[in-house]
Amino acid sequence: MLRPPTVVIENVAPLIDAGRYPVKRAVGEDLVVEADIYKDGHDVVSALLKWRKAGTSRWHETPMHHIPNGNDRWQATCSFHENTTYELTVEAWGDTFRSWQHEFQTKFKAGQQDLASETLEGAALLEKAALKAASLGQLLDKSRLSECAAQIRSGTPAQVEELIHWQELEGLMTAYADRSEATEFILNQPPAAELVELPAPTPAPVPAADTVPSALKPAAQSASQPATAAAPTLTAAPALEATPAPAPRTTAAYPKVLVDRERAAFAQWYEFFPRSAEGRGDRDSRFRDCLPRVDDAKAMGFDVIYFPPIHPIGITARKGRNNAVTCQPGEPGVPYAIGNRHKGAPNGGGHKDVAPELGTLNDFDWLVDEIHARGMEVAIDFAINCSPDHPYVHEHPEWFYARPDGSIKYAENPPKKYQDVYPMNFHNPNWRAMWEELTSVILFWCEHRVRIFRVDNPHTKPLAFWEYLIGKVQARFPDAIFLSEAFTHPKMMKSLAKAGFTHSYTYFTWRNSKHELSEYFSELTQSEMRHYFRANLWPNTPDILPFYLQHGGRPAFLIRAALAATLSPIYGIYSGFELCENAALPGREEYLDSEKYQWKERDWNAPGNIKDWITKLNRIRRENRALHEYSNLRFHQAEHDQILFFSKVTAARDNVLLVLVNLDPHHTHGAHIDVPVELFGWMEGDRYQVHDLLTEERYVWTGRRNFVRLDPHQSPAHILRVRRWAGRERDFDQYL
Amino acid sequence: MLRPPTVVIENVAPLIDAGRYPVKRAVGEDLVVEADIYKDGHDVVSALLKWRKAGTSRWHETPMHHIPNGNDRWQATCSFHENTTYELTVEAWGDTFRSWQHEFQTKFKAGQQDLASETLEGAALLEKAALKAASLGQLLDKSRLSECAAQIRSGTPAQVEELIHWQELEGLMTAYADRSEATEFILNQPPAAELVELPAPTPAPVPAADTVPSALKPAAQSASQPATAAAPTLTAAPALEATPAPAPRTTAAYPKVLVDRERAAFAQWYEFFPRSAEGRGDRDSRFRDCLPRVDDAKAMGFDVIYFPPIHPIGITARKGRNNAVTCQPGEPGVPYAIGNRHKGAPNGGGHKDVAPELGTLNDFDWLVDEIHARGMEVAIDFAINCSPDHPYVHEHPEWFYARPDGSIKYAENPPKKYQDVYPMNFHNPNWRAMWEELTSVILFWCEHRVRIFRVDNPHTKPLAFWEYLIGKVQARFPDAIFLSEAFTHPKMMKSLAKAGFTHSYTYFTWRNSKHELSEYFSELTQSEMRHYFRANLWPNTPDILPFYLQHGGRPAFLIRAALAATLSPIYGIYSGFELCENAALPGREEYLDSEKYQWKERDWNAPGNIKDWITKLNRIRRENRALHEYSNLRFHQAEHDQILFFSKVTAARDNVLLVLVNLDPHHTHGAHIDVPVELFGWMEGDRYQVHDLLTEERYVWTGRRNFVRLDPHQSPAHILRVRRWAGRERDFDQYL
Repeated sequence: MLRPPTVVIENVAPLIDAGRYPVKRAVGEDLVVEADIYKDGHDVVSALLKWRKAGTSRWHETPMHHIPNGNDRWQATCSFHENTTYELTVEAWGDTFRSWQHEFQTKFKAGQQDLASETLEGAALLEKAALKAASLGQLLDKSRLSECAAQIRSGTPAQVEELIHWQELEGLMTAYADRSEATEFILNQPPAAELVELPAPTPAPVPAADTVPSALKPAAQSASQPATAAAPTLTAAPALEATPAPAPRTTAAYPKVLVDRERAAFAQWYEFFPRSAEGRGDRDSRFRDCLPRVDDAKAMGFDVIYFPPIHPIGITARKGRNNAVTCQPGEPGVPYAIGNRHKGAPNGGGHKDVAPELGTLNDFDWLVDEIHARGMEVAIDFAINCSPDHPYVHEHPEWFYARPDGSIKYAENPPKKYQDVYPMNFHNPNWRAMWEELTSVILFWCEHRVRIFRVDNPHTKPLAFWEYLIGKVQARFPDAIFLSEAFTHPKMMKSLAKAGFTHSYTYFTWRNSKHELSEYFSELTQSEMRHYFRANLWPNTPDILPFYLQHGGRPAFLIRAALAATLSPIYGIYSGFELCENAALPGREEYLDSEKYQWKERDWNAPGNIKDWITKLNRIRRENRALHEYSNLRFHQAEHDQILFFSKVTAARDNVLLVLVNLDPHHTHGAHIDVPVELFGWMEGDRYQVHDLLTEERYVWTGRRNFVRLDPHQSPAHILRVRRWAGRERDFDQYL
Repeated sequence: MLRPPTVVIENVAPLIDAGRYPVKRAVGEDLVVEADIYKDGHDVVSALLKWRKAGTSRWHETPMHHIPNGNDRWQATCSFHENTTYELTVEAWGDTFRSWQHEFQTKFKAGQQDLASETLEGAALLEKAALKAASLGQLLDKSRLSECAAQIRSGTPAQVEELIHWQELEGLMTAYADRSEATEFILNQPPAAELVELPAPTPAPVPAADTVPSALKPAAQSASQPATAAAPTLTAAPALEATPAPAPRTTAAYPKVLVDRERAAFAQWYEFFPRSAEGRGDRDSRFRDCLPRVDDAKAMGFDVIYFPPIHPIGITARKGRNNAVTCQPGEPGVPYAIGNRHKGAPNGGGHKDVAPELGTLNDFDWLVDEIHARGMEVAIDFAINCSPDHPYVHEHPEWFYARPDGSIKYAENPPKKYQDVYPMNFHNPNWRAMWEELTSVILFWCEHRVRIFRVDNPHTKPLAFWEYLIGKVQARFPDAIFLSEAFTHPKMMKSLAKAGFTHSYTYFTWRNSKHELSEYFSELTQSEMRHYFRANLWPNTPDILPFYLQHGGRPAFLIRAALAATLSPIYGIYSGFELCENAALPGREEYLDSEKYQWKERDWNAPGNIKDWITKLNRIRRENRALHEYSNLRFHQAEHDQILFFSKVTAARDNVLLVLVNLDPHHTHGAHIDVPVELFGWMEGDRYQVHDLLTEERYVWTGRRNFVRLDPHQSPAHILRVRRWAGRERDFDQYL
């Protein structure tokens, strides 16, 4: 039952938008919870952090500790072991035993002689705890508490003072603390007046101003009956009486923690178009042709294979090579123009079918199974685009935008036109059916054992829709992962993550300078964003070939791969990156002859490829726990503006990495750096070994100031594993 | 009806604890509201700030403006003219007209030839607005919109492009904007899934994994019927179907603004014990003896007369002079030991009676009327202390704490004992009746035309109790003002203000150095606290005679009065301050021979008094609007650590004050100061006059760097009114 709080519990952190959205964690990750906790008067306060799987009844509990000099700030840590939604709360109470203990001690130390009444009070507290122990079936504890109570009753003040600080007694009194008056933190706490729940008063005559209201007597009467049934007592308050007793405005809700599975927190993605698997320029490859590409990705160390849309491609207004408005006969079309009500499409030829040129649903299921068998996983694209040939267009014209002549509007971003795609109207009068149907698309593919969805342009659809869809899907498939492909203004990107997206694309793709990278990644990993926004880093995508890659040659690819692989536990590349493909449309950050619009011929082992570098990076990621954590990124000083220096250190300091990257793809640079030895718990003069995991070179360094030199054509980065010096030369702790 | 938002409205500011508590303002004060506002897609967004008296239906509206480079931050200002509770919200929508206007313009400027369809769309928007105007009875506007629509229908693209930017049309389309899809900001917004309110689905057979679910067809059927009655469409989702459709978790609530009356924002208090009115050492003065003291206070410029408790004083365990444990026969006792069930007490002799030695309730009513007749007001003390002789003790022993022997516990703060006072137990089983009864005490005195309550030690009672009591009282008497006398840790002081206290005592009493004062008052007036915490400054109280006053002589009193009178629009003194009384208990910050415990002989015009200084300060306060505002305090640089320099400037810059105070009561100091001319909108080289309102001296200053010198024995402060130089010597703008 809600009742007025006895303890103030506020500023609980982390809460996202005051608890409106869950904090995110992955299986095995910790959460440090803080809160301001205090109460009126002089009672000693005790507090617990409690958490449980949502929908279950038993809490896990751990004591909270007052932060020294923390100005009423308390803290505790909890952890999560299942891929599900948890809820948590803070419980606090005025601790009668500890308050009494403190009072007794103060009086005893002040030399107060008569402590008989105080002694009896203390004994009664122990007896109450003994009853609680008995009611829980803890008979040994019960008898121990009863014994102590008896000793207190018969003890001298000095004996009592000694007894009540026995560690055993303190433990028992903690275990059986009287929490009957405890307060739990809840979201949307109603105003006190609603909690007092006064009975609706009946009207009373308005007294004249100089009449003496005798409110005391009715109040005295009400003492003999339950307060909830008390007669009205405020005879002098006509206006108050006219106000009906309000119902509580809210029901209790606890802060939530969404716990994702491990691959949501650590993964390396490889994106390719199934139709390009063989690298032929003359026809589609098929699902059954994809295994060599999958095996190559596995060999490089990737574990998520991401396919752009695999659905039937529209015929009407189909685009040609390099986004030509009209295509030539036989051109394959753009996979993002989804929907083709072709004959034989088992599910109408829309989002629940596969393009016939790639194979059948059975072929797709086979490919998914093959990929799973390799310990890898499939991600597919969810693009809410309908070609004019999509079944929705014919069955639900009301889901689209109409022109004045009744025809359906195609997509535009004036003056650009996308005649092959119809946008959907998320607020059409039949929106509920549409939201449900789109949700059913994801559930359909979940049934086909796909659990990762890269969502195209989510920022052009309502946030409420995503919150609804992701919530519905994860209620059934908590292992479903959603990647938000939103390159838009910062607040919208944050809101999509709050609304439920597991991962987000980022501005990483355009952050090249030392200042840009350190500022942006400090925000991502150190601000409140770290609790709900997981950066999935992509140096390229089918839509984006950044100028940096266009002009930096092979070293630029090495550099961007090293940054993506170390700045976040989640990253991916779009195929062709490993071949250093960098031919762009003039003056644009887009691929020339993009395979979005055509078949593309490729040698997947073309000379100059960086597959070895990527393979090394992924192996280093796998083997170093520090790279599996998100918010342990810290930037440090390197005395050169082209040399970026950061560390990744596990909480236990059992894996300490220093990463140095030369951001200039053209020139060699050297710099003195300031090694943050304090992060590793060392002294300024300590010696240690740094082992470059990329080159296998080892150096012995001392203290803070050291020197690095990086040639972008050889190895533009160091990933240095730090090992403690254990006394003799060459005798470094190999376990670090 | 709640429905999924179409626009994101978040980070609305100011909100106190996410809207759990109201923002405070006084009648006539403005509130600047900001919010992050954005939506999916490319629509142009429009937004309004809306506010209204709580419980009424019509909103005031004002457009919000996007802050330039504000990263989706919008702003508007509202103001409040009644002493009541307001609610406010932000409404935003995708503006179909402005979006169309933008799209048309973009296409037109890009030279697109065929704009026929776009033109018809625009005309339709105007026709829809015309219908809205007609429905509101605005027939002139209706016909103007219809005319424009017709012109658009028949216009060339160039004509349309010109027409749609006519200011008149823009005004009309703003007035009749289509807000049918608008979103309002509400507190405790429920999750999207609750708003979609899907019908409870009926069970369906679980399909085999490779069965093709045909969700599309049921969805197609549902298009022909209202979505809320649609048949279940997720035939492939058995787990989802098992989940009942949840009811929305919350009901809409708007952020609240508590608007107090003007005296809550600007007042000067004078505290005296009625029994000391005549300054006799041998007996009580009575209510009917108080007028000379009131008139003296009025002459000094005070407008609130605050009386410590006026109720019957207990006999049992009555304390004597200087807090002696036992009193001598005839001693008057401590007014904070409330309650004496003496014969003839009309209301039982507790908190609803007056001490017989002061007179009768009629005498008190007479005094209140006399004070009101002088344009002044009465504040009384609300101390929830019961002497052993209080009627509550006898009628409601369950409201107190029991000792093991059944007797009632007196107050203790070990090792200190307060045998003359019983604390009340706010969580006793009969707490509801007690909370109501205590509330009725305040309502009783409101009926006796008292509307200001200084509350003793509120931090030793539950916050929920205060929120309940103040809410109940202000629902009936919105002009009731509550001052929290809590000298405790910072978060509790803030929470009391959030819970409803209009004013708060502060740490001012112990903040003496330049650093302490500027840091503390910057927090009070510039942090979020300014929206809910109003500092009522007291250089002394009956409980506190600070060391600074004990040792600083008369100048210390001048200095502390000047600081209190200028750092906040609300301040007060406890009588005797104007006489520079500074005799203390040795080593303590308490008065020697405190009148809390005894009668006290005084000459209210004793030599060396500072009544003239106080009179001047209060006159300056009255005449200068800048001193009526709270959050316009800004500290500036003075090149001496004993000279405090701050400004108070009205928003309109029509009252500009520079205040300089020598904090050293012993020595004269001079300092160069850095005048913040930019605050007044002037240039660095401008000349201006500064007029010392305390001494009537005038100086002509230029630019930023000037010099002051302050002798604490003469006038330890400047309050400089700044007047603009208007061209000729001695020709300063007298209106400033």
